[in-house]
Amino acid sequence: MQRPLRVGIAGLGTVGAAVIKLLDRQAEALASRVGRAVIVTGVSARDKTKERGIDLSRFVWFDDPVALARSEEIDLFVELIGGADGTALAGAEQALASGKPVVTANKALLARHGMRLATLAEEMSLALAFEASVAGGIPIVKTLREGLAGNSIERVYGILNGTCNYILSRMETEGLSFEACLAEAQKLGYAEADPTFDIGGFDTAHKLAILASLAFGTAVDPEGISVEGIESISLADLQAADELGYRVKLLGVAQRSADGIEQRVHPSMVPKTSAIAQVMGVTNAVTIDADAVHELTLAGPGAGGEATASAIVADIADIARGVRSAPFGLPVAALTSLPRPPMRLHQGGYYIRLSVEDRPGAAAAIAKRMAEREISLESIVQRRRPGTIASGAVPVILVTYATHEQTVREALDAVVADGYLAAKPQLIRIERE
Amino acid sequence: MQRPLRVGIAGLGTVGAAVIKLLDRQAEALASRVGRAVIVTGVSARDKTKERGIDLSRFVWFDDPVALARSEEIDLFVELIGGADGTALAGAEQALASGKPVVTANKALLARHGMRLATLAEEMSLALAFEASVAGGIPIVKTLREGLAGNSIERVYGILNGTCNYILSRMETEGLSFEACLAEAQKLGYAEADPTFDIGGFDTAHKLAILASLAFGTAVDPEGISVEGIESISLADLQAADELGYRVKLLGVAQRSADGIEQRVHPSMVPKTSAIAQVMGVTNAVTIDADAVHELTLAGPGAGGEATASAIVADIADIARGVRSAPFGLPVAALTSLPRPPMRLHQGGYYIRLSVEDRPGAAAAIAKRMAEREISLESIVQRRRPGTIASGAVPVILVTYATHEQTVREALDAVVADGYLAAKPQLIRIERE
Repeated sequence: MQRPLRVGIAGLGTVGAAVIKLLDRQAEALASRVGRAVIVTGVSARDKTKERGIDLSRFVWFDDPVALARSEEIDLFVELIGGADGTALAGAEQALASGKPVVTANKALLARHGMRLATLAEEMSLALAFEASVAGGIPIVKTLREGLAGNSIERVYGILNGTCNYILSRMETEGLSFEACLAEAQKLGYAEADPTFDIGGFDTAHKLAILASLAFGTAVDPEGISVEGIESISLADLQAADELGYRVKLLGVAQRSADGIEQRVHPSMVPKTSAIAQVMGVTNAVTIDADAVHELTLAGPGAGGEATASAIVADIADIARGVRSAPFGLPVAALTSLPRPPMRLHQGGYYIRLSVEDRPGAAAAIAKRMAEREISLESIVQRRRPGTIASGAVPVILVTYATHEQTVREALDAVVADGYLAAKPQLIRIERE
Repeated sequence: MQRPLRVGIAGLGTVGAAVIKLLDRQAEALASRVGRAVIVTGVSARDKTKERGIDLSRFVWFDDPVALARSEEIDLFVELIGGADGTALAGAEQALASGKPVVTANKALLARHGMRLATLAEEMSLALAFEASVAGGIPIVKTLREGLAGNSIERVYGILNGTCNYILSRMETEGLSFEACLAEAQKLGYAEADPTFDIGGFDTAHKLAILASLAFGTAVDPEGISVEGIESISLADLQAADELGYRVKLLGVAQRSADGIEQRVHPSMVPKTSAIAQVMGVTNAVTIDADAVHELTLAGPGAGGEATASAIVADIADIARGVRSAPFGLPVAALTSLPRPPMRLHQGGYYIRLSVEDRPGAAAAIAKRMAEREISLESIVQRRRPGTIASGAVPVILVTYATHEQTVREALDAVVADGYLAAKPQLIRIERE
């Protein structure tokens, strides 16, 4: 048996503590699997005295995570500090520069500095592993990088933020407002006091940037991602979706199109019968469309200490066995920068909810504006529902066949200009199965 | 870049041809991923002249797959011959003995000779890879062996046979009989002329033997698996399941219990809200319950040339990158033989459908037999449905809380002995989520 793999862990929050406990609990089985012992030897955190349910006296303590990263006490650096820059980046860079592979759960770090770190890892012939950075315990990074190595991927999309899915699930099943469900999620610890990062779609965008790189062999770059959050989704939308055979989910979608690779985060209507529509609560799921495997869906816990630790320990086990793939599946020089078409070039079906003033000619005017731009409608529903709309206005729901987003936007601008609407139109993209 | 990996393929049916086409199509991307070219150099099949849509003149032809396995023309042997013994086994053994890693999609071979081949691979320090042997394109072998390396697994269960799931799905959605759906499946090529191997649960058992070994670190051994097929499932069962909030699926289940590792294949009632219940048609799915990741579900194509080729090419890619894990996750010597409790020790809920003769005292007698053995009933439904039962008899559906199978069997024997039943009782196990 080889000599033990000595692990250093920087950051002892929920996830860091769970990794230590899991490595303890699985010590024997893991050693048998990978052919060597895996032991934590050094740790670093902000507060040494905090109660974590772990005896830290076994480990060498480092006040400075960067000192841990360069220490002779460890063979592998696990970065669980968080944040896109600062000591997380400094620690990861120091570890790689010191000849130590890096395991991280830090999606923000990878979204911003993934290429820089992958280049350094490649130069040093070291592993940079980040299974835990996307969709928690779901082995989606390994699946894209290794399990689908023979596939040309057409689309990867998923529910990547448990907070948003919890809120949308609760709104749908309990008939509660967005605000009530957000407050509930905050009370349960599923949402932060400032929830913008989650509900605004930015967390999903970071994860999508990583998935898109793995799926399409492109450089990680979150800047060009179109991001919309779930703040504007109302109960009226969920009820209309239900009647039309859809559910509303916040999706991150990366998709090959005629114009490049679309990368977009927005609320989406998904068919109720699709695998992704079944995913409720804080669960995450990712579906991959590819030429050989056709459709593959993975669903599981997207967050939580233990599930995230599961992914981190799998990365550690790969490194212990001597596995080293290119972090993003291809050598950094082979990663391309395919164009990212703007949303106006997106083609798909659209759900449109209008609050139309209840006066003659309104419906005809709307239909005319759609017809002018050759937008075909799959369905039109006009029905008054108590409490869902301002009095004096009638809700009209349109569902279009696939068309260009720009065309739909122009038609809606014309409808607005006609002066029949009592409120801003709601538009939700339909994601085909 | 390293020298090319030269692949030999024995067996050029649908899957073999799909592997050659996929390796052609993905040649450039794959070489970039794994750092070397992957090229097919030698092939073997029964009939050289059969039209496969492939130019075979590029390859060295071998009439004898064993000669291909030992040939200097190849570095890796892909066994797609099929059959548990014969040339499939001889070819795989010859390849390993000649220092060549083996990739196979042959579940029957692995179920019967997995330990023998794994031992040989280990002695020779070679890879033995079989992602395609279970659940087609779903990367379940990699997930269990690598992705969940840090987990202690409690249960792995799934829909592993597309033929059975197609038949059950069609019965449910179309209200057709088992016989009608089987005939349809045969017409569509989803079922063999002799469908026993699929619908009797034996195919699922082979796959389960492999999954159980990976999940629990036990030696592969299909002999001790309890196997029941779907032949006895009637429309009346599917309708009752629907009313009770369940769907009926043929599951393979391997589960840690107080008595060892249960390994069983049988029709199961699964809650309609579970991920596994959503899986319709020929799609496969596997759910894993484990201590750290909690619950993970993978769903995708369980068969088909392209999906199977996807898994085979992923195995080839791993080998090309130099990855070598123990075939069943642990060194062969570390694989244990945990006891397999017989079905009578199984604990769970039960669905029981009785055809009760319509005369006084019947219901009371049945209830008494259950109460005598302290079987708690979650529900009792007695309802006459036109056409579902012999005239003069009344259908009675019982759903029990968790109890021992032996207890339920004894109670049913007593009910039968009481003489109130017009037909053999139907019993379907409920698989909790």
